Amino acid sequence: MVKKGKSNMIWGARFDNAPEQIMKSINSSINFDRRLYKQDILASIIHTEMLANNYIISKKIANKIVKGLKRILKEIENNKFVFKESLEDIHMNIEARLHELIGEEAGWLHTARSRNDQVSTDFRLWIRDAIDDLVSQLENLMRAFLNKAEVYYDTIMPGFTHLQVAQPITFGHHLLAYLEMFSRDIERFKNARHSLNECPLGAAALAGTSFPIDREETSKNLGFERPMRNSIDAVSDRDFCLDFLAASTICATHLSRFAEEIVIWSSAQFNFITLSDQFSTGSSIMPQKRNPDAAELIRGKVGRVSGSLVGLLTVLKGLPLAYSKDLQEDKEAIFDTYDTMALCLSAMGGMISDIKPNPKTLLEASKIGFSTATDLADWLVKELKIPFRESHKITGAIVKLAEKKRCELSALDLKSLKTIENKISNNVFLALSVESSVKSRNSLGGTSPSQVQIQINEWKKKLI
Amino acid sequence: MVKKGKSNMIWGARFDNAPEQIMKSINSSINFDRRLYKQDILASIIHTEMLANNYIISKKIANKIVKGLKRILKEIENNKFVFKESLEDIHMNIEARLHELIGEEAGWLHTARSRNDQVSTDFRLWIRDAIDDLVSQLENLMRAFLNKAEVYYDTIMPGFTHLQVAQPITFGHHLLAYLEMFSRDIERFKNARHSLNECPLGAAALAGTSFPIDREETSKNLGFERPMRNSIDAVSDRDFCLDFLAASTICATHLSRFAEEIVIWSSAQFNFITLSDQFSTGSSIMPQKRNPDAAELIRGKVGRVSGSLVGLLTVLKGLPLAYSKDLQEDKEAIFDTYDTMALCLSAMGGMISDIKPNPKTLLEASKIGFSTATDLADWLVKELKIPFRESHKITGAIVKLAEKKRCELSALDLKSLKTIENKISNNVFLALSVESSVKSRNSLGGTSPSQVQIQINEWKKKLI
Amino acid sequence: MVKKGKSNMIWGARFDNAPEQIMKSINSSINFDRRLYKQDILASIIHTEMLANNYIISKKIANKIVKGLKRILKEIENNKFVFKESLEDIHMNIEARLHELIGEEAGWLHTARSRNDQVSTDFRLWIRDAIDDLVSQLENLMRAFLNKAEVYYDTIMPGFTHLQVAQPITFGHHLLAYLEMFSRDIERFKNARHSLNECPLGAAALAGTSFPIDREETSKNLGFERPMRNSIDAVSDRDFCLDFLAASTICATHLSRFAEEIVIWSSAQFNFITLSDQFSTGSSIMPQKRNPDAAELIRGKVGRVSGSLVGLLTVLKGLPLAYSKDLQEDKEAIFDTYDTMALCLSAMGGMISDIKPNPKTLLEASKIGFSTATDLADWLVKELKIPFRESHKITGAIVKLAEKKRCELSALDLKSLKTIENKISNNVFLALSVESSVKSRNSLGGTSPSQVQIQINEWKKKLI
Amino acid sequence: MVKKGKSNMIWGARFDNAPEQIMKSINSSINFDRRLYKQDILASIIHTEMLANNYIISKKIANKIVKGLKRILKEIENNKFVFKESLEDIHMNIEARLHELIGEEAGWLHTARSRNDQVSTDFRLWIRDAIDDLVSQLENLMRAFLNKAEVYYDTIMPGFTHLQVAQPITFGHHLLAYLEMFSRDIERFKNARHSLNECPLGAAALAGTSFPIDREETSKNLGFERPMRNSIDAVSDRDFCLDFLAASTICATHLSRFAEEIVIWSSAQFNFITLSDQFSTGSSIMPQKRNPDAAELIRGKVGRVSGSLVGLLTVLKGLPLAYSKDLQEDKEAIFDTYDTMALCLSAMGGMISDIKPNPKTLLEASKIGFSTATDLADWLVKELKIPFRESHKITGAIVKLAEKKRCELSALDLKSLKTIENKISNNVFLALSVESSVKSRNSLGGTSPSQVQIQINEWKKKLI
Repeated sequence: MVKKGKSNMIWGARFDNAPEQIMKSINSSINFDRRLYKQDILASIIHTEMLANNYIISKKIANKIVKGLKRILKEIENNKFVFKESLEDIHMNIEARLHELIGEEAGWLHTARSRNDQVSTDFRLWIRDAIDDLVSQLENLMRAFLNKAEVYYDTIMPGFTHLQVAQPITFGHHLLAYLEMFSRDIERFKNARHSLNECPLGAAALAGTSFPIDREETSKNLGFERPMRNSIDAVSDRDFCLDFLAASTICATHLSRFAEEIVIWSSAQFNFITLSDQFSTGSSIMPQKRNPDAAELIRGKVGRVSGSLVGLLTVLKGLPLAYSKDLQEDKEAIFDTYDTMALCLSAMGGMISDIKPNPKTLLEASKIGFSTATDLADWLVKELKIPFRESHKITGAIVKLAEKKRCELSALDLKSLKTIENKISNNVFLALSVESSVKSRNSLGGTSPSQVQIQINEWKKKLI
Repeated sequence: MVKKGKSNMIWGARFDNAPEQIMKSINSSINFDRRLYKQDILASIIHTEMLANNYIISKKIANKIVKGLKRILKEIENNKFVFKESLEDIHMNIEARLHELIGEEAGWLHTARSRNDQVSTDFRLWIRDAIDDLVSQLENLMRAFLNKAEVYYDTIMPGFTHLQVAQPITFGHHLLAYLEMFSRDIERFKNARHSLNECPLGAAALAGTSFPIDREETSKNLGFERPMRNSIDAVSDRDFCLDFLAASTICATHLSRFAEEIVIWSSAQFNFITLSDQFSTGSSIMPQKRNPDAAELIRGKVGRVSGSLVGLLTVLKGLPLAYSKDLQEDKEAIFDTYDTMALCLSAMGGMISDIKPNPKTLLEASKIGFSTATDLADWLVKELKIPFRESHKITGAIVKLAEKKRCELSALDLKSLKTIENKISNNVFLALSVESSVKSRNSLGGTSPSQVQIQINEWKKKLI
Repeated sequence: MVKKGKSNMIWGARFDNAPEQIMKSINSSINFDRRLYKQDILASIIHTEMLANNYIISKKIANKIVKGLKRILKEIENNKFVFKESLEDIHMNIEARLHELIGEEAGWLHTARSRNDQVSTDFRLWIRDAIDDLVSQLENLMRAFLNKAEVYYDTIMPGFTHLQVAQPITFGHHLLAYLEMFSRDIERFKNARHSLNECPLGAAALAGTSFPIDREETSKNLGFERPMRNSIDAVSDRDFCLDFLAASTICATHLSRFAEEIVIWSSAQFNFITLSDQFSTGSSIMPQKRNPDAAELIRGKVGRVSGSLVGLLTVLKGLPLAYSKDLQEDKEAIFDTYDTMALCLSAMGGMISDIKPNPKTLLEASKIGFSTATDLADWLVKELKIPFRESHKITGAIVKLAEKKRCELSALDLKSLKTIENKISNNVFLALSVESSVKSRNSLGGTSPSQVQIQINEWKKKLI
Repeated sequence: MVKKGKSNMIWGARFDNAPEQIMKSINSSINFDRRLYKQDILASIIHTEMLANNYIISKKIANKIVKGLKRILKEIENNKFVFKESLEDIHMNIEARLHELIGEEAGWLHTARSRNDQVSTDFRLWIRDAIDDLVSQLENLMRAFLNKAEVYYDTIMPGFTHLQVAQPITFGHHLLAYLEMFSRDIERFKNARHSLNECPLGAAALAGTSFPIDREETSKNLGFERPMRNSIDAVSDRDFCLDFLAASTICATHLSRFAEEIVIWSSAQFNFITLSDQFSTGSSIMPQKRNPDAAELIRGKVGRVSGSLVGLLTVLKGLPLAYSKDLQEDKEAIFDTYDTMALCLSAMGGMISDIKPNPKTLLEASKIGFSTATDLADWLVKELKIPFRESHKITGAIVKLAEKKRCELSALDLKSLKTIENKISNNVFLALSVESSVKSRNSLGGTSPSQVQIQINEWKKKLI
């Protein structure tokens, strides 16, 4: 067996060789779960009032407890509260302080509940707030994208597939694609909010309680939609964390896609946009430089968010019911994810607001690579009634000709075109400019400025 | 530069040294995307009819195309269709066959669409079907759990925290916790279904089309709720895949938790349940053995499902719009996940239906560890009006006494109890048996048989 | 465009609506990279000395710089250093302080280097230290397992497959399995250390430098094995982080497996071991309780570690060379992983040292389920020369008989045995006890106490 | 309970409602583990010979078994072997066929082993082969990069940080950065190979065996370095799978980085390289197009590889010893990863061999953004003895001047320069061209053509 004298070597200096210290370090959660203080106090107040309303504790005691809790809330918000690691978590820290403030009657507070249902209640309230905040930030971000889309609704730029110029589109149209993603993100967060919004309080340790509590009352007063229906599920479920993390990860993925576009677009080679000084960093030696640091950081942050999702999924894998201490790993993952998302949404909002597209470069780029070839093919189908696949082949031959002559499609003369397809007439040229191409793609949701306008107006109605 | 003669060494024998072969191997998707054949044909038929209805192609040609497509459907379902790797994907395989069947007029089919919107349409339809199937399987699984819960609604067993006996609960109550999880899973899948159920068709390559198509018509006839509003988003979005994978991963996590319980419960040490021969494996040498192989496999399968989620998130990270070939990685992840989920849900359904709890063992186990200590504490609060925290301390002292005397709480005599708290009266013993403990936890969602019955009845209404 | 007045709403209160504040928050790393202070100062000193030795700066200036840096080291270690977020990172904080201390000559320090090679150097040094510490902790953990294995080298317990009793083994033998895992962990960490131990310093921003620096000298004096051979790789590589995270994740997986065993073994049903008070938590109400909180936490911590690995892999996916700001995401993942691993290794060491196996329970459990059936089959092969598969069938029949008679194999009489296989003789009973079973499995690495002793002695030699 | 009639509904049509079919589907592994046939037969032959050499079975029987196994090998390789799902796995399929071929004496084959040690042995042998193949492919890939680097060792291109032009480098130098990564990949695979190369055979089910086997002999004849030292570890360890997956994931990450560069470089905006027809795809309508499909697919494939790593880590999390059926999930993850890696390495080899850099574009691009500003600063330090930080400030001012004058740094006249720093002399211009910049960065591992040459020569020696 390890001898006392030797144990020094075994645990190393970091933990002062004391098992108590190791255990405290691994077991205590007060360093992070203190962020739940507001929710914990709120839930305690509502719980106390319910106990009194149902004659489980006296009104007088309840009033004392509530008064004490409110005072503690103020102490914490004024940074006058001393958190103690020895008291392990936020719940015990607050209850211990309540005891200091009001004496033994503080002992009534924990009637008909347990830390298991308490922490689940607190955390659901916290995430509910976090979701509300992120949704509001997403809406702001959407407004910022929308504002930019409105200004550049008919600014022609290349649309890419495989990062190759495919067809001309408009800058506004491209930005609106992100509004679709962000609106799905909001939907996802709202679904998560709806799903989490059930009250675990009253499940106690895991089996419910024999006190005549009114779970409907507590649930309602805490803004939940209903009490959770199964007390075991109430203390062992962490779906509400997974839903929040999954929604955040998908949202962060969207942000990473636009961040990548910012990085590419602000390269000297693309030069599609100019970043503001505020959201780029220069260098003392190259004062003209605008490194897209913020975009790169946002692109990278998706890693930690998806890492947190993987982390909690791993924790929950194969975990038997009801409560196990492993579940304590939920907090830091969620806190870090919220902080990261809030920061990324803010930074992205700042960037998009400040971005200046370079219309001239965008227009020139949109003409590269015979980008109106599909317009030519469509013209052949529509005007000459040639089946699509056949039209495609003819177009291929014409593009080859233009390539050989090193000119754009619109610069070929009619005679040359007729050598390939004799029925082609002069009005084909109406289809070959990027301007007419963009205008013509007028199907619902298409890139034509009028379609983009319609979408912008729809979004305006929703986002006001 | 690599000399021709040397290139052999460079690409190795596996690919016959031929770049064409390597490229075909990495680029082709027909080996897996053939699973989309039904959706692809359906979408093509609806698209063709829309083209005819809007005078983009003639009715006569449309009829030919539709007839040809229906014939191809039959050929595939009768295993008479020859898939060719050289034709790359399911779309080209079907169109090429259509050309064989009806000749050049097949060339009209692809009018006003592109593979980019086509594959997104097909895949959304496929996942919609997959979700409907998994939801139906989840409902069946819930019925199986419900049936079992009904039979054992008042069978007393230990409720665990930290895998330590905490409080007595009922077997039915424990199973109902999983019904809560599965019902959230269904909600999650339904949200995913709702979110994906928009029609990308008409987005064409990425910018929409100049043909006067009716996207509302196609959308409606394919059972979508509406056309997607932004053509760029329509071809670059894979949220519908992520939502499906996230919902599957969380559901698989739930299954892994029950699988773990099955493994632990069927150990000789627990002996809480007996597995059927059908869902366990024996050994030729130990014919009495029932290894919980199916449960272990289900527990493990959560790995591949969450791996697929991570995989696709990684693919999408930092991917610029609109379509890039990376997106082709979506298919296999989804197909494997669906197959895995379908198999796990079936196997779990079989297992739960066949499981036999051992009531006697469960009852005995529920008495271990002074599992009614909290009942005693609650009694002190309710009957003697002692604050909860104080009651807890008294209970602790009584438990210590019982431990010293090596007897259960209910076996202590009143005199002994009074040495610790003089006000305790004889009717305390009503609170100390596991039977009365279970009965008393009658708060909403609690473990009392009457609460369990209420929940069972609620579920029955929902699941019929 | 977003109006100034409105922007308030857009970025929310959290960031005071100030783009500068948002940018600072997302861009600054001083809150976490300050942990690199020691490595940063060391590398700066060695770099300065090299510059002087190669006449790039004067000895006099070099001395001043080195003296200043040493003073800064002391300031930091005595908590007298003021870190400024506006100075972004640890490098600029230190250099700015140096300027305060010694004036303009501080400007020579950064000659022939860049933050890109500097941070990679610092971080490699830091991880090298972290690995050395974790390896040392792993060795201590191995000693703790070894000590326990030595005491219980012949304590019989059940060996499990599928959590079903399969064959009797010894407690010591089981623990030694973990020594194998931990020794592979050490190997993995050492490989990671070897791989990272190359010096990036001198790569400068990415292209190397035109100053006549001596990279061999810097490398050697910082304890690296050699300078990195390619300056672009030197600033863009983060393999050394991935290797550390992968090694940590696999090690954490091993810990989670033993943690799970602790949780199961300390359940009332198994009762294989007793945890010490120090590494379990009780409850005020159930003072006898020993919840395996520390084991559960360790089991859960594998989630965050593998999450960090996934996170950084995601960051690096598709990142073009050379340096991008995304790489800044490497630090927190590594710091958190090191802290987690150090804590888990300490806590596991404490637990294993304190664990008390319950030999009587273990022995009884080892007899469950006809655990010596394979011994019987092997006896039939060896003594009666019956082919293995046939012997298995005979054994199966005998087990069935014992099951029917509700007795152990060793309690069957010879006559009964002969009804199944007439050639069985009396000395078969020598093979049927768990004691003789364990002794007989004397193949290299087998469970026999003598084999276990051999392995213990080998480990002792290695671990002294 | 579920009624028979209803159970149909419960498990759905897919599995014909038959529990046997569900169980077979989830339990059987023959569909994938048949890939182990060669290793399984080899290990069986070596095991049989050892049994005979140690007088455990007769030579005559051993010969029969070996002959039978060799015949089975041929049958499989000639596609004449009928795999049966009912026989579950590759081991039972082969043993059953052996029984058909040689009768009851086949029953001796499984003496002193179990499927637990057998499958671990087979799989280690398989992965060992897989590693050898991937290492060889990596070496070929390195040769292809090296060949290309040699041709373009002095071709000037921009070096990027933040995808912004930072300093001029050479194309060869950039490619050599990947050789460093690939050589670390090889090291990592070799470490994995070394770590897995221990023989589990003889561990039997988990406890070793009582037969007098010679584990050293089997180990040696199968090419292992030694027998595994602990029989429990031998059957429960899957580190060898994790190591393979981790090495593959990191390698795939490297490939994704170069794939991203290919995609960006082959965009019209960058136009740094031209892809061959063979490794790009065109479009019928835009015959000039070269979509970098292969690069995009490689970039995406890192997702599935890291997903497999996450998957197996999840499986192993919290898994008690020794063997559990969850471990069966190891195979498909590994097989898919090997196939993916082999394909990606081949495709990348093909691409790099065919890539044609566009030197003119690269050169022009290298001059963008005052890319020699750091050269100017270094000149000020070296020639005018101005401290580095001060030199940086002066350079910043000069760059601003050049920006104002819209000219390159080298196009400024001396007079203008002197307005900022009077000591600047005419020979500053020697430092300002990209050619001289590249040449000057001659520190070890720097970008100067002579340094690149040195590295190329070193690599040539290693890779011949």
